[in-house]
Amino acid sequence: MKSRVHLLMAGDPERGGLASRCFDACLMALIVANVIAVILESVEGIFLHYRELFYTFELFSVTVFSIEYILRLWTCTETPDYHGAVLGRVRYAFTPMALVDLVAILPFFLPILIPMDLRFVRAARLLRLFRLLKLGRYSYAFKMLSGAFQRSKETLAVAASVLVVLLIFASSLMYYLEHEAQPEAFSSIPQAMWWTIVTLTTVGYGDVYPVTPAGKLLGSFIAVMGIGMFAIPAGVLATAFIEEIQKKGSKTTREEETTVSPQEETIALLERLDALHDKGVLSDDEFLAQKERILKR
Amino acid sequence: MKSRVHLLMAGDPERGGLASRCFDACLMALIVANVIAVILESVEGIFLHYRELFYTFELFSVTVFSIEYILRLWTCTETPDYHGAVLGRVRYAFTPMALVDLVAILPFFLPILIPMDLRFVRAARLLRLFRLLKLGRYSYAFKMLSGAFQRSKETLAVAASVLVVLLIFASSLMYYLEHEAQPEAFSSIPQAMWWTIVTLTTVGYGDVYPVTPAGKLLGSFIAVMGIGMFAIPAGVLATAFIEEIQKKGSKTTREEETTVSPQEETIALLERLDALHDKGVLSDDEFLAQKERILKR
Amino acid sequence: MKSRVHLLMAGDPERGGLASRCFDACLMALIVANVIAVILESVEGIFLHYRELFYTFELFSVTVFSIEYILRLWTCTETPDYHGAVLGRVRYAFTPMALVDLVAILPFFLPILIPMDLRFVRAARLLRLFRLLKLGRYSYAFKMLSGAFQRSKETLAVAASVLVVLLIFASSLMYYLEHEAQPEAFSSIPQAMWWTIVTLTTVGYGDVYPVTPAGKLLGSFIAVMGIGMFAIPAGVLATAFIEEIQKKGSKTTREEETTVSPQEETIALLERLDALHDKGVLSDDEFLAQKERILKR
Amino acid sequence: MKSRVHLLMAGDPERGGLASRCFDACLMALIVANVIAVILESVEGIFLHYRELFYTFELFSVTVFSIEYILRLWTCTETPDYHGAVLGRVRYAFTPMALVDLVAILPFFLPILIPMDLRFVRAARLLRLFRLLKLGRYSYAFKMLSGAFQRSKETLAVAASVLVVLLIFASSLMYYLEHEAQPEAFSSIPQAMWWTIVTLTTVGYGDVYPVTPAGKLLGSFIAVMGIGMFAIPAGVLATAFIEEIQKKGSKTTREEETTVSPQEETIALLERLDALHDKGVLSDDEFLAQKERILKR
Repeated sequence: MKSRVHLLMAGDPERGGLASRCFDACLMALIVANVIAVILESVEGIFLHYRELFYTFELFSVTVFSIEYILRLWTCTETPDYHGAVLGRVRYAFTPMALVDLVAILPFFLPILIPMDLRFVRAARLLRLFRLLKLGRYSYAFKMLSGAFQRSKETLAVAASVLVVLLIFASSLMYYLEHEAQPEAFSSIPQAMWWTIVTLTTVGYGDVYPVTPAGKLLGSFIAVMGIGMFAIPAGVLATAFIEEIQKKGSKTTREEETTVSPQEETIALLERLDALHDKGVLSDDEFLAQKERILKR
Repeated sequence: MKSRVHLLMAGDPERGGLASRCFDACLMALIVANVIAVILESVEGIFLHYRELFYTFELFSVTVFSIEYILRLWTCTETPDYHGAVLGRVRYAFTPMALVDLVAILPFFLPILIPMDLRFVRAARLLRLFRLLKLGRYSYAFKMLSGAFQRSKETLAVAASVLVVLLIFASSLMYYLEHEAQPEAFSSIPQAMWWTIVTLTTVGYGDVYPVTPAGKLLGSFIAVMGIGMFAIPAGVLATAFIEEIQKKGSKTTREEETTVSPQEETIALLERLDALHDKGVLSDDEFLAQKERILKR
Repeated sequence: MKSRVHLLMAGDPERGGLASRCFDACLMALIVANVIAVILESVEGIFLHYRELFYTFELFSVTVFSIEYILRLWTCTETPDYHGAVLGRVRYAFTPMALVDLVAILPFFLPILIPMDLRFVRAARLLRLFRLLKLGRYSYAFKMLSGAFQRSKETLAVAASVLVVLLIFASSLMYYLEHEAQPEAFSSIPQAMWWTIVTLTTVGYGDVYPVTPAGKLLGSFIAVMGIGMFAIPAGVLATAFIEEIQKKGSKTTREEETTVSPQEETIALLERLDALHDKGVLSDDEFLAQKERILKR
Repeated sequence: MKSRVHLLMAGDPERGGLASRCFDACLMALIVANVIAVILESVEGIFLHYRELFYTFELFSVTVFSIEYILRLWTCTETPDYHGAVLGRVRYAFTPMALVDLVAILPFFLPILIPMDLRFVRAARLLRLFRLLKLGRYSYAFKMLSGAFQRSKETLAVAASVLVVLLIFASSLMYYLEHEAQPEAFSSIPQAMWWTIVTLTTVGYGDVYPVTPAGKLLGSFIAVMGIGMFAIPAGVLATAFIEEIQKKGSKTTREEETTVSPQEETIALLERLDALHDKGVLSDDEFLAQKERILKR
């Protein structure tokens, strides 16, 4: 029984069969519906009108997700990785996907278990969005994105340190130049950092900008030279992500490209040479001469 | 008669001759004039002043385009692809270019056939702009662009799914952080999505931006990391488009690049020579002479 | 005498010697000083204060540039390209650099020759800025930039046609969606084009932006997909420019890379083989065998 | 004693041992704490509340940095580069890192030594930020960034000259077109340059933008064509920086790639063998055996 449930939930379409695929599709639909519900709830008009419906749907979702979580915890011992009735389950409970599953149901149970003020309840509602991460189990794009992060980790770290230094210098200089003219917008260096980020990402909302000639001059210089630095993390991530996507497609292509090993080539050429000799195309002497040439390579 | 009309309209300058090229040029000019007319009509001052002229031009254009559509439908059976008096024509009528031709004249006839309210009539006027797509028949850039779409379809789909997830997360977080401080601008998650898109495309109109310290901090982080993700579709499309343009020139170069090892070439030539000898194409003497030449290389 | 003046002005430092280099430096300094003068004149406070000085400097500059122009026209016949006292000079007068020289002095003489209204006089003042182009004779960056234009001409043309179509479609759709809500900002399609350009270049001043939900939705889609298209001309030009700069440095590197022709290689190998034979390292038989192998390649 | 102190401060973890590493970590922590202090001081609320603490910390930091500077100046003669009790120390005092160390303590001592007005004292406070540059001694990212600057120096210089010309032209044209409509925002050409920079970096705050049709048309054209030019310095720097980071990993790969034709290798080996034989390293028999092995390959 346990092993059949495990197979059903393992998300392996080849071994799980139709039932497994159907189970996956239903769960995915429920996750998407949940995310849509969270988004729609935030629209006041819709929320007030369909309050009951939203609550019922939430109750239903939490029930399903709770059962799913319990079943996964129960059946995880089927996998060799999480062997052991207690220790295996504890280890499984701390895998990223199991934590995501837990976070998906926690916002519902937490306010019941512990009395909380209203502010926390609202934040808990937001946590329901993390149910979207449950899709990670099925999603190709998620894997690509985390692969892209892994690959560009090092470059991102170096770029981040440069960004922090650039951010501190640019913001401090602008603070000293603009503080007097705009005591509100450039009230402190952390405030000035908002200007630096809005400028160097080229977003430029227009809520803060230099007004003094010196501030404009420095701001211009910072913008022309610094924009590239702030574009590095975004650019590196995007490039790695695109490469990650295109890697799969070219894997098979690459295998074909990898030049055949010389030993294999030698054998293949000898086989073809032998065929020509057998058919009498080449005399014995010619055959031997050619054979030698191939063997000597 | 039908085949001559077909040749005239086929847009094949080599076989169609001067008359065909002249026909194409006139039609292209009329299409461009139509687009300019739609643009100018939208300027109130010009529209009120030249009302009559615009109406006359529209009448003329629709007449020409209708005749063109009917002629194309009549002569399409000349092409082997659309053989059959009824079935061939129906199949032709559902090709993209034929649909574009239909949409180009429909906005004029529809309000006559079916009584409609004014709102729809205005939208119908907009449809006249799709006459621009008629240029697709003649345009090189259109082909490049649709080629670029085809090539980057897969990457675009994966990027789109990441974009949607990123959009939902960023918007929801900003909504929860800024909702209280700015109940108008961040009234709901869908509203907050406008901020996310305006920020992550780096457009930054300045109509919505975070004002709370927490919102600014999160907004900064989202901007620095997320801009690259939103730049992917635009960047992938633009790159594919440029590649599509430059592909033509490098096609021949690539073919020359593929090289084979001399030993393999020798064997392959001998195999082909042997095949020719077996079929009696080459006499024994000719075969031996050629074999020697190949072996001596 | 004429040939000596020509040598002085030809800008050929090797043949012209110190005098020529000095002449070039003085002229370049005068051009830069002129551009700075035009910029400073535009600042009202400075202009009113130093009016006389600016006028004197302008008089001096025009005198020098006029003499330079006349001398160049006089001595151009020294070059084989512009032979012929009248025809050669006329041909020279229509070369780009000669036209630039003429435009540099025209703004001063034109208002004297023909009576003009004040508006034109102001525009004429602007023409003085084109004196900057006189630097083109000496400038490396100018050559690089025009080279970049030449190289990417084709791609730019195709991209421009796509841009125009995209601009028309995006602007028309936004006009129809936003016209009623914002009759001022989206008063006509040409007006809506300003929104499209400000958005798709990601500048986003914030003077016009969609306010209706439908407009925001379409605007988001246009921005996410279209930004790449509007980035093409700028990106193509910038890439070609950088390549143009880096081309020079790698020219010599490339020449070394070009694989030696097989004939040359054969000769070189035979020469080295012969040297080994002469020294007795290889016996006659060995030498012949190796020679054969090299010749048979 | 001096040499032990020098070893402690040299920042060479292999020779300096645990004490040296501990010393480096403490100094780095102090530098970071200083930068955080400067940032926090700029927040008025925090500054007024912890005034005493900030002053005490500054006193402590300056004491430590002063001792560090004196010790470095004292021990620098241990390095062969700065030999000589007086001349060596003077030469060391003018190295970039020594100057940074001096600037880090100067803002404290200068106001004591020379009486200054308040304005200068505030600027001196800003100089404390340059203590961040002291991290350069330990930082990998600093080296990468300065390497990136070195590599792209030439391209940056050419791009800068094009930028200046483009800036002058665009600003002057916009000034002449918009001056009458917006006498405030486009009051002079230098003022219009702010618009050009804000537009061509695509920041687009929205504080200045063209309002006349002619200004919008020109502004659109400048934006579409010019954005790429202003993106060059930022892009070139960012690319060089990323390459600098990734260079390390690929160094070994390149060396393996260079390949030589087998015939050439044979000859080259024979030449070297012959040389060894001539020098008597190889006996005749050994030489012949090796020769055969090379020839048989």
